[in-house]
Amino acid sequence: MINRLKENMIRISAMGRVSNRSVESYGQLDPKRGVSRPEGSEANRVLRDFTVQCMQDAGLSVRIDRVGNILGRKDGERNHEKAVMIGSHLDSVMNGGHLDGALGVFSGIEAVRRLRDEDFHNQRPIDVAAFTGEEGSSFVVGAMLGSAVLAGKMGADEALSARNIHGRTLHEVLTEMGYKGDFEYCVDDVDAFLELHIEQGPVLDFEGVPVGIVAQIAGITWLKSTITGSGNHAGTTPMHLRQDALVAAAEAIRFLNRRAREMAESLHSAIVGTTGHLSVYPNNLNVIPGMVELGFDIRDISLENMQGLTEETLSFLNGLKHENGLDVHVDSLHVQAPVNLSEDIVRIIEKAAVQAGVRFKRMASGAGHDTQNMASIARAGMIFVPSVRGISHAPMEWTEWEDIEKGVSVLTGALKVLSA
Amino acid sequence: MINRLKENMIRISAMGRVSNRSVESYGQLDPKRGVSRPEGSEANRVLRDFTVQCMQDAGLSVRIDRVGNILGRKDGERNHEKAVMIGSHLDSVMNGGHLDGALGVFSGIEAVRRLRDEDFHNQRPIDVAAFTGEEGSSFVVGAMLGSAVLAGKMGADEALSARNIHGRTLHEVLTEMGYKGDFEYCVDDVDAFLELHIEQGPVLDFEGVPVGIVAQIAGITWLKSTITGSGNHAGTTPMHLRQDALVAAAEAIRFLNRRAREMAESLHSAIVGTTGHLSVYPNNLNVIPGMVELGFDIRDISLENMQGLTEETLSFLNGLKHENGLDVHVDSLHVQAPVNLSEDIVRIIEKAAVQAGVRFKRMASGAGHDTQNMASIARAGMIFVPSVRGISHAPMEWTEWEDIEKGVSVLTGALKVLSA
Repeated sequence: MINRLKENMIRISAMGRVSNRSVESYGQLDPKRGVSRPEGSEANRVLRDFTVQCMQDAGLSVRIDRVGNILGRKDGERNHEKAVMIGSHLDSVMNGGHLDGALGVFSGIEAVRRLRDEDFHNQRPIDVAAFTGEEGSSFVVGAMLGSAVLAGKMGADEALSARNIHGRTLHEVLTEMGYKGDFEYCVDDVDAFLELHIEQGPVLDFEGVPVGIVAQIAGITWLKSTITGSGNHAGTTPMHLRQDALVAAAEAIRFLNRRAREMAESLHSAIVGTTGHLSVYPNNLNVIPGMVELGFDIRDISLENMQGLTEETLSFLNGLKHENGLDVHVDSLHVQAPVNLSEDIVRIIEKAAVQAGVRFKRMASGAGHDTQNMASIARAGMIFVPSVRGISHAPMEWTEWEDIEKGVSVLTGALKVLSA
Repeated sequence: MINRLKENMIRISAMGRVSNRSVESYGQLDPKRGVSRPEGSEANRVLRDFTVQCMQDAGLSVRIDRVGNILGRKDGERNHEKAVMIGSHLDSVMNGGHLDGALGVFSGIEAVRRLRDEDFHNQRPIDVAAFTGEEGSSFVVGAMLGSAVLAGKMGADEALSARNIHGRTLHEVLTEMGYKGDFEYCVDDVDAFLELHIEQGPVLDFEGVPVGIVAQIAGITWLKSTITGSGNHAGTTPMHLRQDALVAAAEAIRFLNRRAREMAESLHSAIVGTTGHLSVYPNNLNVIPGMVELGFDIRDISLENMQGLTEETLSFLNGLKHENGLDVHVDSLHVQAPVNLSEDIVRIIEKAAVQAGVRFKRMASGAGHDTQNMASIARAGMIFVPSVRGISHAPMEWTEWEDIEKGVSVLTGALKVLSA
């Protein structure tokens, strides 16, 4: 049965891929290319068309909503009841992997096909969802745009007027691709939501566990800091007369890493702190850096701990101000509170895993997902499958087909319980 | 008398300048623009023409050598004797200051004019030199190209075949500007060399001393290092499973800065260590840096101490290799030994300063200068004037006119002694 899903995944891996290699096995991945399917790209349009075709082949009736979300409905015995929704997104980052997002949509289609194969009569209607613009890499209004609109957290007009890096609005891009629909999903119409997704981290792979059941999605704080010192000649400025912005930045990078490690260990938590961005000015070998820009990413499932580490980082940065007369400026770019997923759903997924004989572990998601928007209007849960070596958002993103099969069988089991 | 030099300096400051502001006073500097006079630029050609004109107006006979060095000769009473050469360079970095280099050439012309005004009869011939390509920013064969060829340290053909960033050879560029000469200066024909230059560091300004007499030029070591870890999702990779290349780089930046400070203090030396270059890949806020490139600059007047700090830095970088499985690669880009200038000349300059009633201090130069090439064929010395706030290679580069006058009077005094 996995062959049907595998065939689709291999087929769509060519969409937005800039390499002739297949993704049938890990050894065939091209480490430099990957897939690029931002909203509005030709690859994205082709993948949308193929998805609609697959949904129709699976007997689903397809509706397109105002922001291009694709919803494939399998009617239930009691269609007036609230629906069960399963799905994920089709867009990708540039030069990303072939699994992130698309696997969840095609696993959803596969689960519904299995229900049909088994002649399972779902009571509640089922919607397989392919959300628009999850990655936030094309439309800067924010990530998880499609699910935010569906869940009523963002207005459709606001989303449609967002512009991509080419200056085009989402409205224009959807219209061009033929995916500017007019369907409006009522936020009260969803009872439960399920999303299968790759972990994008190394935990399941490292521990050899095929399925993760997500109980929380971590909150995110993004900080941007500018440290200004004095750019000067590296050969002629004595050590004691320097205001080196990069040396100060090095202290901040070290501090955040050390405190995140200490807190993760002492609190037995998955708190993380990363300096992912650093730009140095003028960045010449023989000039003392006069200015640096830093970008920090702090996440935890505990709002209190996330805020604590953020406060510590801010106060460390402020402390640098008083050393050597450096000027330090900090902006908060983005704060997103942690989300607890439904304990009901976690238990239902756990039972499905036990029934399928699949080993699993409860875990938190460090990445954001459409599920966190859906959690505000319905009972919501997520199933993770392992990312080999934890790699994601990169061409070498991979999950073994046998692990995907385990994930899909758990997804199908939970879908049956929820839609029964 | 300073007015004549000041007038020339203000006039040439418009050459290669991208602003309408005058450089008559510090308050009129444009902090964003500066001057750009790389070899081969229109600004460089215009400045060369003006320099030749000024030399001729001062009664000098001008010769152009094979690599475009401009040499303006004032005959002496005993022309068969070895010459005294004074000068510096005309080229500048991009968006640099109006003083670096050009001040030394025009101070040389001014000193010769003063000899003429005083009806001073020099015994030895005097050559005022304007060297080609000191900054090394246009022709990557290395800095101080013109003086290297004149001193016989580099072949003229090698220099002429060097290409600039536009792929054009120095030969082509000089020919186009009208400065491809055929004069060959004999390396045995120089008795003494003097260069007036801005300090480019903060020491004289900080200590309120108008003239520095350079006794040594520091050696330079440039290292480039690549640290490779594992680029991964910042949200999903636990702290204990990371191979963060930027955190390792931060340790190295901190180490070099700390050890250079400690050595400068404990050895009472002017040793410096700088990380001027750092590039982060992929440099996204929410991705753990998988690779960084670092550029280190280490300088001292003691070869032993420079090598010591370099060794310590290399061994620290190698130590990082064994932590978290990082891969560390180091290349030595450039090593230049320290140069001791002539003690004879230092004493002659000191006497000239005392006679002119100008306060001075002996010091080392942290930057490289044409003088270090000339030191291999003649007794060579340098006179520094203060750089306000130590700024150089930047639009805000400035020296007070009264300090320039003090420098020129010391230069003139020393020139008289050497050419008498």
